[in-house]
Amino acid sequence: MKLVSFMAHGRAGWGMVEGDAVRDMSAALPGTPSLRTLLEQDGIPAAGKVAASAPLLAMETITLLPVIPDPAKIFCIGLNYVEHREETNNPTMTEPTIFVRFANSLTAHGMPIRHPAETDMLDYEAELAVIIGKGGRRISRAAAYDHVAGYACANDVSVRDWQRHTTQYTPGKNWPTSGPLGPWLVTRDEVGELAPLRISCRLNGETVQDAHLGDLIFDVPRLIEYISTFTELAPGDVIFTGTPGGVGAKRVPPLFMKPGDRVEVEIEKVGLLVNPVVQD
Amino acid sequence: MKLVSFMAHGRAGWGMVEGDAVRDMSAALPGTPSLRTLLEQDGIPAAGKVAASAPLLAMETITLLPVIPDPAKIFCIGLNYVEHREETNNPTMTEPTIFVRFANSLTAHGMPIRHPAETDMLDYEAELAVIIGKGGRRISRAAAYDHVAGYACANDVSVRDWQRHTTQYTPGKNWPTSGPLGPWLVTRDEVGELAPLRISCRLNGETVQDAHLGDLIFDVPRLIEYISTFTELAPGDVIFTGTPGGVGAKRVPPLFMKPGDRVEVEIEKVGLLVNPVVQD
Repeated sequence: MKLVSFMAHGRAGWGMVEGDAVRDMSAALPGTPSLRTLLEQDGIPAAGKVAASAPLLAMETITLLPVIPDPAKIFCIGLNYVEHREETNNPTMTEPTIFVRFANSLTAHGMPIRHPAETDMLDYEAELAVIIGKGGRRISRAAAYDHVAGYACANDVSVRDWQRHTTQYTPGKNWPTSGPLGPWLVTRDEVGELAPLRISCRLNGETVQDAHLGDLIFDVPRLIEYISTFTELAPGDVIFTGTPGGVGAKRVPPLFMKPGDRVEVEIEKVGLLVNPVVQD
Repeated sequence: MKLVSFMAHGRAGWGMVEGDAVRDMSAALPGTPSLRTLLEQDGIPAAGKVAASAPLLAMETITLLPVIPDPAKIFCIGLNYVEHREETNNPTMTEPTIFVRFANSLTAHGMPIRHPAETDMLDYEAELAVIIGKGGRRISRAAAYDHVAGYACANDVSVRDWQRHTTQYTPGKNWPTSGPLGPWLVTRDEVGELAPLRISCRLNGETVQDAHLGDLIFDVPRLIEYISTFTELAPGDVIFTGTPGGVGAKRVPPLFMKPGDRVEVEIEKVGLLVNPVVQD
């Protein structure tokens, strides 16, 4: 099942992808106005049963929103692929590196990434995003996948000079439109085993990152176990799981994004997330 | 004006402190159910005019909530007093160090700080919290105070070993109940100039931190200018402005909080925030 958040006729809603169209599930289920409420209600199975009666909207009549437009928490994992740790000269740690992105930095598939005037170091980072379905605290590795609703493609767009102002990454990771998340949430049952899946990033058609999800240093169950120890996970929370090697800042010469560029994140069985870059 | 968020008779509300009682402003203004909505509506002046007609609740009939229970963003400033930079061997930077606390880590004046079983290094950090009134982007230093609704006492309680797992502080700064914020928001007009005000922390009655707000390396206008460059500030957002020297981890011998302790943050003209520590 592929789930999207969208605007249509001036109203925010969510739906289920069906070929080139979307079932407007928020119209069919008025008590479930958003994907986050769907997850809070543990409503995916029930939603599937009423999908056939939901209005069918042509894809060109809707504007996609970030998959979850309003997550309470977005955790970003740094340095979670060996190749990226090596290119950034960071030692391997025994625990995951976690920083935070605010919801107001998210943007949707197809929407422009606005290049701030304050930097010449706007960088791409292809990532698998995990969307939490069932919340919880102190979740074991063995139970972790029961808490995953599904996956989406993400681009953890980074303003490298602001990221390096101090030890803490926050100012480099929260610019408006710097968090493309989409185009949809693919439910866990449709994705299956993560390790064999290829993740890649293309800038203007050229492949700049290329890895497999099996290359993750801290896998999804370990991330959920660790994070849920220090905070309670809630439905709709998002984990950006980290980016492979090949980021622009570590290339020789460096390769940063400029207005007019087009950046794509593709993950097998999950989707293709495309965003143009424009001047802010 | 002193504004509080509270639970009374099973309902969340907000009010205005009047001696030993609270005017239930959320009852008088049903279109303004929370302090965050009050700030979104720029409603403080109008609220003052109807306060006399609002029901008066005795303080003992309400349970305080964190001053803003649901901020969209909480920015925490690290290493913002010279003495604390020196005790932690951190060099002076040209930009503020910023990490993030999620709203679900906040707690209220009087509520217990729950000591996690996972640590023996639970530390106090007395801080001035700034509550944003008017939102905005790229706010100048000169205009910054126009965006401040008021101030509150905060305790940026830290799990030091988890804070140091990696370079990023997130896992040490987000445990449930680790962010006391209260007892109230004091509006800016009642506080006036910040620099002369004394900030202190007491653990079991003994003063462990003692400084003046004029000791801040990056003052409130500079913080607002910097933060609003990379993200849009919104009404109800909170900035924890950093802690003075004297934290428990840097004492010889170290002084960490234990169940049974009582920790107090006091800031002149702002308030007194008291929390007991209990075993989680």
